[in-house]
Amino acid sequence: MHHATTRLSASDLQQMPSRYRAMLVNSLSGFKSANLLATVSLSGCTNLAMISSVFHLGADPALLGMIMRPHTVPRDSLENLLATGDYTLNHVHPGMLSAAHQTAARYAADVSEFDAVGLTAEFGSMLAAPYVRESRLNIGLRLVEQHTLQVNGTVLVIGEVVEVLLPPSVIADDGHVQIERLQSVCVSGLDHYHLTESLGRLPYAKPG
Amino acid sequence: MHHATTRLSASDLQQMPSRYRAMLVNSLSGFKSANLLATVSLSGCTNLAMISSVFHLGADPALLGMIMRPHTVPRDSLENLLATGDYTLNHVHPGMLSAAHQTAARYAADVSEFDAVGLTAEFGSMLAAPYVRESRLNIGLRLVEQHTLQVNGTVLVIGEVVEVLLPPSVIADDGHVQIERLQSVCVSGLDHYHLTESLGRLPYAKPG
Repeated sequence: MHHATTRLSASDLQQMPSRYRAMLVNSLSGFKSANLLATVSLSGCTNLAMISSVFHLGADPALLGMIMRPHTVPRDSLENLLATGDYTLNHVHPGMLSAAHQTAARYAADVSEFDAVGLTAEFGSMLAAPYVRESRLNIGLRLVEQHTLQVNGTVLVIGEVVEVLLPPSVIADDGHVQIERLQSVCVSGLDHYHLTESLGRLPYAKPG
Repeated sequence: MHHATTRLSASDLQQMPSRYRAMLVNSLSGFKSANLLATVSLSGCTNLAMISSVFHLGADPALLGMIMRPHTVPRDSLENLLATGDYTLNHVHPGMLSAAHQTAARYAADVSEFDAVGLTAEFGSMLAAPYVRESRLNIGLRLVEQHTLQVNGTVLVIGEVVEVLLPPSVIADDGHVQIERLQSVCVSGLDHYHLTESLGRLPYAKPG
């Protein structure tokens, strides 16, 4: 289809070395959101994990979904949010990116990633889970539904937005939030981070 | 938490005018992927819809998820992919962005969005569904699992990647795909498109 095109079949993907395949397949979906997922255990230990799987699920009620892999680092996060029923998502900007990325390291369960990477837990009045003080857009959520996906055992977690904290200056007159002005980063693949450059907003599409 | 912070509660969100709330809540998750979803009906009518809800679900097997709202325009897409079992996802670059955005218009069911917006359906040998010729990264998928989400009736569609087409020059030595070099766009909110600017790749995180 292209001048020079590589064609990869499912069999080609299966035969790749595991890490190479993970790098390649994680790049396919396109750019991904970067959020810090913050939770707290019933015994009060805070937990922080960078995730790239948060997605919009509905506006009324306001719902976000995310995918958790039970056997990777965010396992503590999953256990915490199932136990307490709530969690926060916090956008990442360049000034906090290296700390945010570092939350992916395999710290012991009794170590708070907040302390380990140097970010600040700030507790609000609505939720047990803390916000990340350094973040410029914070979302508080309450668990409403979960599904374990048969095909690979990952868990879909759905939360309702109960609180949003953001600078008023980035909310446009029509409600659109200028997250590019917050310098929220996005991710490609497993480890590649990006700022964005606006191409503008396009008008509501109508036939003809 | 910030120098000037707007705090929005769930009740504040509920009281917003519907379109304003949709604009705001759709901005919260962060940057989203932009993909053209292509399908074909059993009677041979092709369908094309821009979606921003595609996400990575697993690398082995290679799986992508996406959210379909049964009552909005991609309804034809959902019916087609359930009927034929397959579909394609195609990255969007700036040269095809206005055509891609225009697929969101409410065309009649017997009108192919390919024709209506001026993009080209190209059929491969693996799948009934066509690829978008103008796209620089094409993914062929076969439906493997679906869930209707109780909380709002949206449908989670999970597909296994059966074919990937991309320029070999953008695959790094370790398998990472340089989608920024393809100028793949990302989306914020409902209608804001962005190119990206690399902040670099960060090393695998280890404690200490």
